[in-house]
Amino acid sequence: MDENSFVKYLKSEFPFTDGTGIGDDTSIIKRENGFQLITMDILIEGVHFNHSYFTPEEIAARALAVNLSDIAAMGGEPEYFFLGIGFPENFKGEKLERFFKELKNGCKNWNVKLAGGDMSSSPDKLFISITMVGNSSNPIRRDGAKAGDLIGISRVTGESSLGMELLKRGINIPYYSGLHKVPDPEIAKGVVFSEFVNSMIDVSDGLMIDLGRIMDSSNKGARIKYEKIPVTDEMKAICDKYELKETELVLAGGEDFSLLFTISPEKEKKMKKTAVEYHIIGDVIDEEGVIVEYQGKLLELRRKGFDHFE
Amino acid sequence: MDENSFVKYLKSEFPFTDGTGIGDDTSIIKRENGFQLITMDILIEGVHFNHSYFTPEEIAARALAVNLSDIAAMGGEPEYFFLGIGFPENFKGEKLERFFKELKNGCKNWNVKLAGGDMSSSPDKLFISITMVGNSSNPIRRDGAKAGDLIGISRVTGESSLGMELLKRGINIPYYSGLHKVPDPEIAKGVVFSEFVNSMIDVSDGLMIDLGRIMDSSNKGARIKYEKIPVTDEMKAICDKYELKETELVLAGGEDFSLLFTISPEKEKKMKKTAVEYHIIGDVIDEEGVIVEYQGKLLELRRKGFDHFE
Repeated sequence: MDENSFVKYLKSEFPFTDGTGIGDDTSIIKRENGFQLITMDILIEGVHFNHSYFTPEEIAARALAVNLSDIAAMGGEPEYFFLGIGFPENFKGEKLERFFKELKNGCKNWNVKLAGGDMSSSPDKLFISITMVGNSSNPIRRDGAKAGDLIGISRVTGESSLGMELLKRGINIPYYSGLHKVPDPEIAKGVVFSEFVNSMIDVSDGLMIDLGRIMDSSNKGARIKYEKIPVTDEMKAICDKYELKETELVLAGGEDFSLLFTISPEKEKKMKKTAVEYHIIGDVIDEEGVIVEYQGKLLELRRKGFDHFE
Repeated sequence: MDENSFVKYLKSEFPFTDGTGIGDDTSIIKRENGFQLITMDILIEGVHFNHSYFTPEEIAARALAVNLSDIAAMGGEPEYFFLGIGFPENFKGEKLERFFKELKNGCKNWNVKLAGGDMSSSPDKLFISITMVGNSSNPIRRDGAKAGDLIGISRVTGESSLGMELLKRGINIPYYSGLHKVPDPEIAKGVVFSEFVNSMIDVSDGLMIDLGRIMDSSNKGARIKYEKIPVTDEMKAICDKYELKETELVLAGGEDFSLLFTISPEKEKKMKKTAVEYHIIGDVIDEEGVIVEYQGKLLELRRKGFDHFE
């Protein structure tokens, strides 16, 4: 069973009737005024981060950012969060204090509050769990894509993945490793987009996988023109230099935490006037699946992205 | 820094203005009608459970129970929860399915719903995080104890700890090991108590530690008469047989998940009429600290309970 099938199994076994449960970036709970958004993300040492690459500050900032990004993906505003932390002996004391100091900075930067949580010792690995609570008057789900919609992305993609690949090779280019370590959640853009778009998701596991999630839940398909995806010349040059496959980083590299959305052509004309940066990279079609045109041909992908079940 | 000092540090560094944040069994957020209660508990393999003692079903039931107990400790009713799970290779497949099957049973038993979460592979240890959401029109905090209050406990204490000590010695007496593995949260009693009591907590880290938490946050002290604490003759006999220290299990043994509360003598007269089981074991005094009288003398405790920081 892969991750998508497992989510489908859970959705059918655990029906949620107080709103929208499993299957979107956050759960959506109807309140007296608007909607409450709740999301949980876990980070595990050796899977999501590594002490040889990440400082305690970077771990704290990253844990906060990935959760904030889920709220952004709904077009919501974050309010407060709960932190669960299991720390091994080697993280006690000074490192734990640095973690909490950065968490406090994050609270200030993002205007969110720590509302509670749980902590424990851990045998050897650092475990972090954050549950973030936010709100929106008009949350954008991933199942709203319509045939004829344009597909848009909020910014350049593949750069976080490039940062990670470089780090793996022992090369630290601060701009790219920084993007990988501490993603920049697009809260402000998400709120603007939410007034116009039909569906939205944040790119956590790779453009193809996350676009596939929108299409799967909307029962639609996507046609992407690779040349329309924003990639900087610098990134192209680095890929050349270190023999990294650019199309793979861009299409399958995870953790960009950019926002991916679909929007009707009419609404897109209106959204353009907000002057918020985004890029139209393709359109939604009735036929299911995700296809990518590259130099006039269909692109074959070796790897689609990251799946925790494979 | 011990756990209590660390919680105090966090409370001062992370002020919460949307309700009550760090420092109680759950956070309390004021809603249009009543209060939303949110709590997070983490469970880590090798700290909170062990595969040699716990089946996947018991791990699921326990994870749910400890969170439900936090809602019970506020006198609240649970509604839905978020699950984060990091599973090592050896928990994939059949074990993971058994875990989710039991989780579904738990949802039915406790009338709660799975609303979302996150899952990931984990390098070697199973890591579980649950955030439980509930509600109450009158949540009971731990800082409401008043001098002259009676101190009450909802049921027999020390039995979960006895179960664990026996398991450690390779002795499995199903009643006691069952209490240790899958605690029984007192949701129904908590709701009844909430109409009468001044302060409440669930006993997770031991009677002395948790009573100390009520007293610390209320700036009061407690005087306990050991003989009034309910202990069964069977438990006494088992302690004798295996040379286990009964007073230590009763006073410092964790994970009973009974409810501990303080109540004014007048309200206690009224609560008695509900016929709900509880036991008065002492009273609240102005002088800070927790003292235990045993056979007419003050009891010296070797160990007060479980502290993740020591």
